[in-house]
Amino acid sequence: MPNPTAAMIVIGDELLSGRTRDSNMFHLAGELTKSGFDLKEVRVIGDDRNVIMSTVNALRATHDQVFTSGGIGPTHDDITADSVAAAFGVAIDVREDARAVMQAHCRRLGIELNAARLRMARVPEGAALIDNPVSSAPGFTLENVHVLAGVPAIFEAMVASVLPTLVGGAPMLSETVRVDRPEGEVAGPLGRISEAYPELSIGSYPFLIHGQFGVNLVVRGIDRQILDSAVNELRAAFPRGPE
Amino acid sequence: MPNPTAAMIVIGDELLSGRTRDSNMFHLAGELTKSGFDLKEVRVIGDDRNVIMSTVNALRATHDQVFTSGGIGPTHDDITADSVAAAFGVAIDVREDARAVMQAHCRRLGIELNAARLRMARVPEGAALIDNPVSSAPGFTLENVHVLAGVPAIFEAMVASVLPTLVGGAPMLSETVRVDRPEGEVAGPLGRISEAYPELSIGSYPFLIHGQFGVNLVVRGIDRQILDSAVNELRAAFPRGPE
Repeated sequence: MPNPTAAMIVIGDELLSGRTRDSNMFHLAGELTKSGFDLKEVRVIGDDRNVIMSTVNALRATHDQVFTSGGIGPTHDDITADSVAAAFGVAIDVREDARAVMQAHCRRLGIELNAARLRMARVPEGAALIDNPVSSAPGFTLENVHVLAGVPAIFEAMVASVLPTLVGGAPMLSETVRVDRPEGEVAGPLGRISEAYPELSIGSYPFLIHGQFGVNLVVRGIDRQILDSAVNELRAAFPRGPE
Repeated sequence: MPNPTAAMIVIGDELLSGRTRDSNMFHLAGELTKSGFDLKEVRVIGDDRNVIMSTVNALRATHDQVFTSGGIGPTHDDITADSVAAAFGVAIDVREDARAVMQAHCRRLGIELNAARLRMARVPEGAALIDNPVSSAPGFTLENVHVLAGVPAIFEAMVASVLPTLVGGAPMLSETVRVDRPEGEVAGPLGRISEAYPELSIGSYPFLIHGQFGVNLVVRGIDRQILDSAVNELRAAFPRGPE
């Protein structure tokens, strides 16, 4: 049986302007692979209500799980929670359970629960809260859509909160064979070995380091024996020279 | 007049499995902003012919320019060029101009123009070649779709080749105001200033460094005077304490 699928929506104008380099995609991709989810697509979009709504609705209909990153803070440009509620056609308001979390947080720090902070207690009707051990303001899950913060430390903590609650598939195993020859010389034999192992995915990732071309061959699959057999064939086809 | 829009398609299973961290999105986003293009969306997808075709066709119809990254090398998993040709419904084969480029490259290095390297001379009918000063194998432009390599050094060289040939808009100006207070205390005044400047986009990007919360307020627009005026108001609203 194929693994359950996942999609990710990274939300933020700052990523599309080149001001900020996203790191949440890389983190989530690795965690999903470990948990046996097959991440099929990531979309990076701006802070635009209609775009968020249509993207959420497109991806939640076609993937088992959808994760969003960004846009759930206290400021005027944090419109993700409201846009996701609108995508589902459900109401959103300050909810007592989320308010209690923010209230306890503010009391602990001796800060005021002002209107801006209360905004982070706005949660769509029917959603389950996602724990935020870093700064308290919760994420939430609505059906198969998990709405997480954009700040990397908080995003990663929320992924750790929500991922163990989901049922994944067989973890994908992976081995890398490095070949210090240009990809153009590797392609022929590689294609033949790849055809002989239809149950594996064998990717070829060229690199260029200090003016030398080489290629990493990445073999992925869920069966350890088949994986090892393909790796041995690749090593025999592309022996490494003396170091 | 609004700036012309752009979209990017990042192609590669290795990005979705968490094996590789993409850097081409961040590079292209910055270059597009400098050239006055408004990057609206980035999609990261796998090496899958149907997904590449449908993504190219969806984005080229809705954006002025589309850039792809990855999947144009010599190996069996490099299917981008064929998939883009299929998306446009045009033929693809080894083309004499591209073969000449690869032939000269191989002669220069004293290597064989084998079948795998010749694969990189496959170019869709009607496409214009994009120069690759790093490793010769060309990218190509078909209408408003620019097909570039995935290896970052080659991707960046191809962006430098193709971007000056496109007509952009007014470069977006940007100023950042750093506030060493938690976002929940900044949101109120920020919202009021943001409303007073509808021609600017003011984003609020919280950070967490050494346990201290703060926020970068990023003001973007194309008019220097209006931009400076908003930045001055923000600085007055959030004065910095003694360093």
